Parts: sequence; C-alpha cells; structure tokens
Amino acid sequence: MRVDDRKPNELREIHIEKDYIKHPEGSVLISVGDTKVICSASIEERVPPFLRGQGKGWIAAEYAMLPRATEQRNIRESSKGKVAGRTMEIQRLIGRALRTVVDLEALGERTVWIDCDVIQADGGTRTASITGAFVALSIAIEKGLARKQLKKNPLTDFLAATSVGIDSKGEAILDLCYKEDSSAQVDMNIVMTGSGEFVELQGTGEEATFNMNQLNDMLSLGKEGIEQLIVKQADVIGEFASKIKGG
Amino acid sequence: MRVDDRKPNELREIHIEKDYIKHPEGSVLISVGDTKVICSASIEERVPPFLRGQGKGWIAAEYAMLPRATEQRNIRESSKGKVAGRTMEIQRLIGRALRTVVDLEALGERTVWIDCDVIQADGGTRTASITGAFVALSIAIEKGLARKQLKKNPLTDFLAATSVGIDSKGEAILDLCYKEDSSAQVDMNIVMTGSGEFVELQGTGEEATFNMNQLNDMLSLGKEGIEQLIVKQADVIGEFASKIKGG
Amino acid sequence: MRVDDRKPNELREIHIEKDYIKHPEGSVLISVGDTKVICSASIEERVPPFLRGQGKGWIAAEYAMLPRATEQRNIRESSKGKVAGRTMEIQRLIGRALRTVVDLEALGERTVWIDCDVIQADGGTRTASITGAFVALSIAIEKGLARKQLKKNPLTDFLAATSVGIDSKGEAILDLCYKEDSSAQVDMNIVMTGSGEFVELQGTGEEATFNMNQLNDMLSLGKEGIEQLIVKQADVIGEFASKIKGG
Amino acid sequence: MRVDDRKPNELREIHIEKDYIKHPEGSVLISVGDTKVICSASIEERVPPFLRGQGKGWIAAEYAMLPRATEQRNIRESSKGKVAGRTMEIQRLIGRALRTVVDLEALGERTVWIDCDVIQADGGTRTASITGAFVALSIAIEKGLARKQLKKNPLTDFLAATSVGIDSKGEAILDLCYKEDSSAQVDMNIVMTGSGEFVELQGTGEEATFNMNQLNDMLSLGKEGIEQLIVKQADVIGEFASKIKGG
Amino acid sequence: MRVDDRKPNELREIHIEKDYIKHPEGSVLISVGDTKVICSASIEERVPPFLRGQGKGWIAAEYAMLPRATEQRNIRESSKGKVAGRTMEIQRLIGRALRTVVDLEALGERTVWIDCDVIQADGGTRTASITGAFVALSIAIEKGLARKQLKKNPLTDFLAATSVGIDSKGEAILDLCYKEDSSAQVDMNIVMTGSGEFVELQGTGEEATFNMNQLNDMLSLGKEGIEQLIVKQADVIGEFASKIKGG
Amino acid sequence: MRVDDRKPNELREIHIEKDYIKHPEGSVLISVGDTKVICSASIEERVPPFLRGQGKGWIAAEYAMLPRATEQRNIRESSKGKVAGRTMEIQRLIGRALRTVVDLEALGERTVWIDCDVIQADGGTRTASITGAFVALSIAIEKGLARKQLKKNPLTDFLAATSVGIDSKGEAILDLCYKEDSSAQVDMNIVMTGSGEFVELQGTGEEATFNMNQLNDMLSLGKEGIEQLIVKQADVIGEFASKIKGG
Repeated sequence: MRVDDRKPNELREIHIEKDYIKHPEGSVLISVGDTKVICSASIEERVPPFLRGQGKGWIAAEYAMLPRATEQRNIRESSKGKVAGRTMEIQRLIGRALRTVVDLEALGERTVWIDCDVIQADGGTRTASITGAFVALSIAIEKGLARKQLKKNPLTDFLAATSVGIDSKGEAILDLCYKEDSSAQVDMNIVMTGSGEFVELQGTGEEATFNMNQLNDMLSLGKEGIEQLIVKQADVIGEFASKIKGG
Repeated sequence: MRVDDRKPNELREIHIEKDYIKHPEGSVLISVGDTKVICSASIEERVPPFLRGQGKGWIAAEYAMLPRATEQRNIRESSKGKVAGRTMEIQRLIGRALRTVVDLEALGERTVWIDCDVIQADGGTRTASITGAFVALSIAIEKGLARKQLKKNPLTDFLAATSVGIDSKGEAILDLCYKEDSSAQVDMNIVMTGSGEFVELQGTGEEATFNMNQLNDMLSLGKEGIEQLIVKQADVIGEFASKIKGG
Repeated sequence: MRVDDRKPNELREIHIEKDYIKHPEGSVLISVGDTKVICSASIEERVPPFLRGQGKGWIAAEYAMLPRATEQRNIRESSKGKVAGRTMEIQRLIGRALRTVVDLEALGERTVWIDCDVIQADGGTRTASITGAFVALSIAIEKGLARKQLKKNPLTDFLAATSVGIDSKGEAILDLCYKEDSSAQVDMNIVMTGSGEFVELQGTGEEATFNMNQLNDMLSLGKEGIEQLIVKQADVIGEFASKIKGG
Repeated sequence: MRVDDRKPNELREIHIEKDYIKHPEGSVLISVGDTKVICSASIEERVPPFLRGQGKGWIAAEYAMLPRATEQRNIRESSKGKVAGRTMEIQRLIGRALRTVVDLEALGERTVWIDCDVIQADGGTRTASITGAFVALSIAIEKGLARKQLKKNPLTDFLAATSVGIDSKGEAILDLCYKEDSSAQVDMNIVMTGSGEFVELQGTGEEATFNMNQLNDMLSLGKEGIEQLIVKQADVIGEFASKIKGG
Repeated sequence: MRVDDRKPNELREIHIEKDYIKHPEGSVLISVGDTKVICSASIEERVPPFLRGQGKGWIAAEYAMLPRATEQRNIRESSKGKVAGRTMEIQRLIGRALRTVVDLEALGERTVWIDCDVIQADGGTRTASITGAFVALSIAIEKGLARKQLKKNPLTDFLAATSVGIDSKGEAILDLCYKEDSSAQVDMNIVMTGSGEFVELQGTGEEATFNMNQLNDMLSLGKEGIEQLIVKQADVIGEFASKIKGG
Repeated sequence: MRVDDRKPNELREIHIEKDYIKHPEGSVLISVGDTKVICSASIEERVPPFLRGQGKGWIAAEYAMLPRATEQRNIRESSKGKVAGRTMEIQRLIGRALRTVVDLEALGERTVWIDCDVIQADGGTRTASITGAFVALSIAIEKGLARKQLKKNPLTDFLAATSVGIDSKGEAILDLCYKEDSSAQVDMNIVMTGSGEFVELQGTGEEATFNMNQLNDMLSLGKEGIEQLIVKQADVIGEFASKIKGG
C-alpha cells in the first residue's frame, strides 16, 4: 500500500475547473491531489522574431511557483533576478509537448502563451501543468474559432502527462505525490497523445539505475494513467472534444 | 451612477476565503469585486542581517501578478530579470503598513514573509493585498501562539486599506475599479488602523491636481470604507479578533 | 526649538545656482540646508516607444546619490547591477509631479530628461530634487523657445515640494533635516503647484500613526513652505517666470 | 545508407586524448566524429552550502560552447549575462548522470567540478560530454588516490552516453550527427552504466511521436553503442579501469 | 596654436577645491579646464575578503559620470544594469595607480574607497580623477592620523596624471581637451610619482601608430606637466605635503 | 638565468596550428610556451548599429578563459552573469589593436568577430591572443578574397604583441611566463606593426615604478621579440603573407 493508500496503478483525485480567471482566452485550475496549478492560454497576434513571415504560429510556455506553494518558502525568481534551471527545463518541456499536437500552420502567425502557475505543490507539478494546459489551450482555440480569429482547428490530438516511478521497494507506481517522489529510486515523466503515442519520456535515476523490465512496468502504468486523464479532459472540454482526434 | 452601478460611497463585494493554500502558516484568497489576491503569511525563524541580535522581528512583503491577471498579458518579472518600479513601490508599502500594527519586539527574532500574488486584477490590487495580508498575518500569529512558537500576541491593532479618487466629473468616489481608475483625475490610497488613525496616505494627480475640499471628501469616504472592511476581516478571523485592538 | 534652532514653520536656507554645469539645456545646483542636488534638464528629440506618433512629449526623471553623499558610504547601484526600490519610487515621483505642470501636447514629440544627482544628503533629497528640477526644466524650456525648438511654452504652472512631519513630541514641523527625519513619528512629502493645488501627498507613519488634526497641521505648514520656495524659484528663473502661471 | 555512409548501428569515430590541458586533475579532449569537447575534472576541498557537515561530496557540472563551435556564431552567454535554458538542462544532466556512479560518502567533503567545453559541434555534444567527463573524472580520482587525497575509490561503475533517433524514413539510427539530428523525427539521449542499467532516458519528438516498437529499437541500438564506448573509455583509462565495476 | 590657444606644453587651468562635500574623510572638486570631478576618499574599517587577516589595507576606486556630464546625455550604468568596459578600465587604473604610493601595511586592515564622479567632462577625466583623488586621499590620511585612527603615514610619494598625444599634424601636445582628443592620432595617459618615476603608461593609436621619437616627445611633455600638477596638489594639501616624499 | 632557463631576450617556443576548428572562416591554436589560445575569425555580413550605412566595417573581439585554464579553477563569467573588468579590458585591447592594421572601408559593411578562448594559461594570454588573432584574421581575409566576398585586401600591415617586464632584480626580460609575471616589478604589453611602429603600449608597476632607462630597455626587447613573432606568423600564413605590408 502507498503512503496515501492508493493502489500502484491508481491516480490521485483530479479536478479541472474551467474559466478559473476571467482575462485569458482559456484558463483552468487543475488539482491533482494536493497539487494545484492555474493554467492559462493567451492568444497574441504575433510570433517570435525567428518565425516572422513564415505563416506559422508558436506555442510558448512559462511555469512558475508561488513562493509558498511548497512546504518551505522559496525565494521568488524575480527577486533573484534569474530563472532557475529547473524552471527553464519545465517550461521548455511544456511548450515542446503542446507543440506536438498543434498544427502550427493552421494556427497562423499567432503565439499562444501558456502560463502554468503552481499555487500549491505536492509532486507532479510539471505533468499536472501539461494536462491542465492542454485544456486551457483547447478552450482558447474553441473561442478563437467561434470569434473567427482562427479559421481552422489547429489541434491534432489530445495530450496529457503523468509521472511514474520505482519506489523504494523496487515496485513501479503511478502518479507520485511529493513524499513518494522524495523516496523513489527512479522518477519518469511521460507525455502521451490521445492516440497512445509517446511525445516525451524523461526517466532519471539520480541515486539508482533501472533495467528494461522496470522500464516496461513504468511505461504500461503511465499509459493506463494517461488514458484516464484524457477522459477527464474531454469531459471538461465538453462538446468541442469531439473535434479533437483521440477525444 | 458609477460604471458598475455603485453609489459613490459603496465598496465592491468583498470575500475572504481562509486557509486557501495549505503550506503557509496563514493564507487567504481575498476578492474585492473582480480583483483576486492570494495572500500568505510565512513565519521564518530568522531576521534580515540588519536586525540580527537585536531581539526584534520583521515583516517583509512581496507582491506579484500572474502574467494574465490583466487584460493584456504582462511579461513575467522573472523573465525580464528585474522587478519593476511599480512592484517595488507596492511591496514596500505593504510591508511598511503591516509593521505599523505589529510590535516587533513581541514578535521576537522572526521574519513574517507576506506574499501577495494577484491572480486577477480589476483595480485596487495594492489595497486588497493589504486588507487580505492582515488577515493572513493574524491567522499565522494565532497559529504561532497556539503552538507556543510565539509567547505574546504582537498585533497591536487592525489594519485595512482602500482606494478613493476624484472621478472625471470632479466627484469623490470609494474603491475604484479598473475602469474608474483609468479615467479618474485623482487616485488616493488610504491605509488605516482599527482605531481610525492614518498609516499611509498616497494621493496622486498625474493629469490633474486637487484642492483641500476634494481631499477632505476623499478622506471621509476612505474612513467609511475601511470601517466596513475591518468588520469583514474580524468576521473571518473569528474568535481571535477579540484579542486585537480595534477588532 | 528644533535641532538646528529653526521654528516649526521655518524652511532651511535655500540656494539655487543657475547653469551649474555647461552641457545640459538647463541645470542648477540646489541647496536646501546641507542637502545639495545637481538637477539637469536635457531635451531629446524623440519619445519613448509607448508614445510614438501621438504628437505628445514626455518628462522622464532619474535620481541617484553619489556613494558618499551620506554619512555612511553606499554601494553604487551600477555596481550592484540594479536600481533600489527607494530610487525607483523617487524617480517615478519626480517625473509624475513635473508632468502635472507640463502640457505634453505643447511640448511636441520630445522627451525632457530630468537628472537629479544628490551630491550631499541631509534629509529631503526628493523634495529638493523636485524644486530644483522645476527650475532646470524652465531654463531648458526658455532656451528651447528662444532657439525655436519649441513653438509654445508647455509650462502650465509653477511646482515645488517640501516635507513636513510630526516630531517625537507630536508637533508638526516643516522641512525636516536628516536628524529630525530619523526621529520623526510621521513623514509627509507634499508637492504643490503655484496655484496652491495638491499634486502629490505621501504621508507615512512607519512606527506611528496620525490623526486628522495632525494631518491638517502638516498640510498648512507645507502650503506655507511651498509658497516661499516658489518665490525663490521665480527669482532664479528671472524674467521668464512671468510667462508661467503661479509665478 | 546514412548521410555519412554509416550503418544504422554504427558509431562515429571516437578519439579520447588524455591529459589534454595541464592544470586540471583530470582532462581529456574527446572527439566523436567532428564533435570535439574538452572535459576537465577539478577537485575542490569543499562542498556547496547545502551539503556542509554531512561527510559527503558532490559532482557539479558546467557546459559551454565556444561562440564559433557551430556553423553560425553564437553570442557568448557571458555577454548576454545569462545562461540559456538549453545549457542549464545539459549541465544538470551531466552532473546528475555522473553522480549515479559516484559513492558521495567515499568521495568525502569535496566537490569535483566537471567542465565540458565544446570547441567544435556536430551533434551529440551532451552525450560526448558525459562520455568524456567520465574519463576525466576517473583520471582525477586515480590521481587523488595516488596522492592520498582520497582514501577510497568512489567510482562504483562505468558510465557513457549516446544518442539514438528515428530518421525521416522511420528507421532507428545510432549516434546522430548534426545533419541527421536536424531531420530526425525523434531524438533520444541514453545514459547507461557499465553494468547495462539505465541512468537517464530522454526521448523527445517535437514534430512527431513514437510508439513502443520504435522505442525498443532505439533502446537496443543505444545499448550496443554504449558498450563500445565503454571499451574505448577503459582503454584510455588504462590499468585503473580494472578498479571500476563494469570496466 | 591649439584649439584653445594653448602652447603645446601648456596645461589647462587647474583648480582644486578642498572639502567640497562634508561627509567623506577627504574630498575635492578638481577642475582641469572644463573637466570637473568630485573626488572623495572614505576610510572603511575592513578589507575585501581576499586580504582578510593579512594585516594589510586596500585602496579601491570607483568612477562614474553624471548622465549629462557630456554633450550627449548618456544612459546611467545603474539603469543599464551593468558597468561599461571603459568605466571598469578607468576605475582599475585609478586604484592601481594610487596603491603604488601607499604602503598598504602601514594603512592597516582598512579600505580607502576612492570615488571619482565626473560632473562635467571635457577630455582627460581619468587623469583629472587620479590627480584629484590623490589630494582627497591625503586629506583623509591626514585626518586619520590626527584622530589616531592611523598610526603611521602610509603615503610614500606624490602622484599625479595627465594626458599627452600626437595631434593631427603629428606634433606632441600636453593635456588634451575633448576636441583635441577626438582628432588626435595618438593618445597617451601618464601617471607619475613626485620622484619622477613612471607608474602607468598607456599609449594607444586606434587609427594611427607612433614611433620612438614621438614617444619620447610625449614622455617629456608629460613629465613637465605632472611636475606642475604636483606643485598645485602640494599647495592645496598645505602643511601635510611636507610629510609626503616628492612634495 | 630565468626560471625556465631562457636568456633575457628569448621568447618562449611558439607554435601556430592553422585551421584548428572547422566552422570559422579563419582559426588557429597558438601556443606560446604553455599558454594556449584558440583564436577564430568569423565574418558577419552586417555592422554594429553605430556604423550602419557608412560603408565601413568593424573588427569586434571577445576573450575568455576556460574555467580550468588556470591553476585554480575560475568561476565562469556566464555563471556570474557578468564579464569581469579584466576581460573587458583585454577584449577592448584586442579589437582596437587589430583595427589599426585593417582598412575598414576596404572591409565594407561587415564585422569580423575575433574570438580568443584561452584553453591553458601560463602568462601572456592577451599578447598571445593578439598574435594568434592576426593570423586567424588573415586566413579569413584570404578566404573572403578567394570567394569574392571581399573585393580588396583590407590588411594594411602585420601585427603582433608580446610582454616585457622588469624582474625582481631590476633586469628587463622578454615574454614573461606566469611565474615571472607574478614576481616582476613592472609588466608592459607592447603591440607593434610589421613596420616597427607602436600600436599600444601599456606599462604598469603596481608595486613598483620604473624610470626612463628601464623603459628603453623594455622597448628594445619588445621590438626584437615582435620581429621574431612576425616571421612565425608569415610562415603560417604562407603565400598570402606577401600581400601584407611588413610580411
């Protein structure tokens, strides 16, 4: 049994609250257990310099934590004057993952800014961010189509993410909370599409290593979890979900 | 009549949700109309270098906005690598105001970090931050007393803040929303104690000036509004409010 | 009696030396007691990006102290790599205050840069900066009109500033020197026009609070002081003073 | 056939030149095809603040490129005043990977600084860095043991890295050069120990996704390549290789 | 004849005003023609980390210009967030030069901070800074000896600096003003002691080169000018000058 | 006899390896004794903003050291977030010196970026950088002429640099290694053209001073050394050397 009495293949409780804040084109508050992230999607009518004039759009992601999202208060990155390596890694991951399910030509010369702000952290903030950001993005896209800002649906598939790991007894487990994450031997983040294809796979064993069998166990737990997450996403997205492959 | 149908001396609707996030010693989500701020108070068992060894504590405040708290998305200060002048001004104001109602000797060699993170902005974010931060601070103090971390209640009075202004027709109004703020001739922030004394007064007329009569009108509206805010605060704080002067 | 034998309503000695440095369009060295500030006004034939193409100008202000303007040497902000919050607050105040008495359309698409560099500090550096900067600005404007760079006088009124406070015995005093400032209960900066209207009012009681009577005492001392400062300014400006309302 | 006429499972030519620069405790110039990296290992007799007094050591890694290591000149990160996200990601990876094969208690309260400076880039700079850094580290460790600075060999296993990918025709290939990397559908970095266990697995499909079969193909190519790299490493390390498991 | 009617070997007019600002231990306003620099010397009772516990002191120098010291307004280095290369070069030169005439053991574990702030620039700001800084330093030392803060005079010699150059006609000239500096073929800064020995020699010919004869002409002009500067310094320093070699 | 058994007028052993890295238009690895620098020259088809539209080119230089180029590891400037004063001084010197022998009009609206990266340091890194950079630059120019990117040879002369000094016994010596540099009384860098004219002269005596005789001894050693360096350069450049004056 796990620290919070879940079975090895059991996700934490998931809630996705739509339109959590009023200004962004799309926004949600996603809760995965005690991890809570405000995800918003903002459509901007221009692209970064490297894309100008190519008829293509861009998905740019930023990630941050409130100072007291964690048990110990963290110093703000704005006060330190620089963004931590971990933050950069995460926001690069979120942007890259979402771009895989967006047809950037169909988006046109626009940037969708994805902001993931963790207000409470209990493990799995980057995967919750991706899962929530996909919903915020699809709300923004739906709105853009409705108001004719977009001509064509650029979403090519569903996308969600979760973590898997090998616990201290060598067993594979799904969706690690902070306590499990701290004592796990191996931690792996999986991002998958609604069609069940891998988008990102990042497995790390800082104090341990893992073999092929353990890898396979983790991958099948991950697949199972992501399928359930996509059902939740589709539910929140509502009717528009039927316009996205894998939904 | 005002843009949102309020009377000149009418506050917007106020909600203060206690214990909004789980890690900080004290936290609230305060809503003043559509302005929403997460305020948290974190007790740290040390003081800044300039206070070491003096047997006194400190209240330090930080303020930030989510990028899409506003109608147009703002670039994160962490990405820009520096904190804007406006942000610094606000966090200095919040810290200074709260310190007026805290007996720093009674606090002992501790810092209380106040974090005010605006998740949705519609005018008056700095005054909502102060009003919410006072509640978060009193929750943290109550908890510190309960667990014997603190020996003595350092809170010496209630504290709340609101804005007043002179609208485009020259009339004094209370608690300006964003639209009113944009078109007002004069904008003034007032911070007051539960005993009705001024703590801060910051009046600015960028495109206009104001005379003594207008000043007096604004001050009396402000006093009226702050008295109502303190009733709300006391309500949320509950029984512990009776241990604070002015409550 | 006060630490320097002044009466409660007495300003320190004021000197304003015109054309103190040769390159700027306007410059003065203002001394308010032992506080000395070099104020210069530089006209630049372009505006900040947010104003381009609107036919309006801008007044931008910067403020700094020499490292040894104070009793203890301060580390340079250029060495620290960032501008302190206090500095930003002051330079925002100076710019905002001066813009109130400038018709930005009449200025045309130009920026006037106001530089206030404190070479010796003894309290009241921000108010001395505003008072001196107004003179530097009017010299620059006069020159701009003489050489037909400007078509029309954009100055709409005189402007000066001083500080008032409540001393440790609870009495209102005018134009606090550093020693008084350190021990005062309340400190208030007042910026007023030649017509006697308020432009900025910033009152702060970090360790104390103040009531309505004390506020009124401070406001009337401030008005009295500013009237005397404007007489001094007009004197230095000379004949051109008659072209400015309130002069 | 591949752009450089290699078979799908063929590594590029590998050279590892020992003691390439004279000051570091360990250093190599590693060439993997046209990718050339100077790797050095420097032993410092202290640990970062978070480890002080715990009797454990640390491996810290830094990575950089000469401005003209690439076809287009890059602006130096020192000139830009900040380290890019990509650089941070890579140096975090190198440090984390090496720590997996070091017994930090056996290292004692010391930091080994790993510097990987790419002087010529043609794809696979991060995996070449890891492979070269392991050799530099083992030279430094051998020297530390010889001069009694270290009491016990802290190396617990061999470690090397390579990249694998899915090319534009959907085929798995080993050790991608820059041209292949640019056109590949999927890119995966694999770090493995001498015992054949996974340390890191980072697979990314920015413009495509991958399925389980493709993953398995990539993993077996990677294993094959890393076994050959470890033979090369052992050869350069010489006699001391026999003191490391997996060597 | 030169642009300002001087002879080739003629210095500009020199004024050194003692005790120009009240807080520093030593300060002067030095004018060399239209170049004006406030130089101050501040004694701090500690040394930089690299000197702690060695019984030696340090001379640290900083240099800056007011934004409008020059014909075109310069952006403040504090606003840019970094110190320009030219500024660093100059402050390193000033500190290094002064340390040559200070016995750092006799100074004891103290830092003397030298601040050179150019308020008006017309060529030769770095050499005027050195010449003025020496006087500020000797005033501070005299005061330190008088109040027994220092036990022994650490000044070992006089020190002054000037510039020489080769003008557009190939002639050597002394003490270049800004106009001459802009059109000169070669520019050389010379720092010398009261004993006539070289401390620094920095000759640069960006658009031209120079031969041995031209070098010799410049060196003898420089020597002549510095001898006159030292007479001026001794005059301002007064009686204490007799306690410094070369005075 | 010197620490490494050289005669006072003897250079260390010099090697210049052409085309050391493949991407830049010109590159060398220069070794001066144990000092090793990778110098590269990159031609960019645009100029810095201050030169746009003037039909002239620019030579821009950057200089850096690998962290472990030195006996003690240095923190990277990219990690510190700023470039040290010493680095700026050196890169300004390299650029300025090379521009003296380049006809910027003949170069056309192009920038040649010179990168000098020290991979091993043993004294004289800035002079080795200049000597190596000249060769890298001439290779790039030769290539630019061959491919008709350049119409005309912009090189007007040869250029090389070395250091001279006064050792602890008061004797002049040529080409100081690190040990000599640390104990020398005076250190002077000399940059000269193939025609034997001075380009830069920077002599510094931090703990000592020098007189005219010592200066003359150093200058004649420097001239002798630079003549030998230019012979080496011409040898590496090959046939194209005959197209450069002084070669």
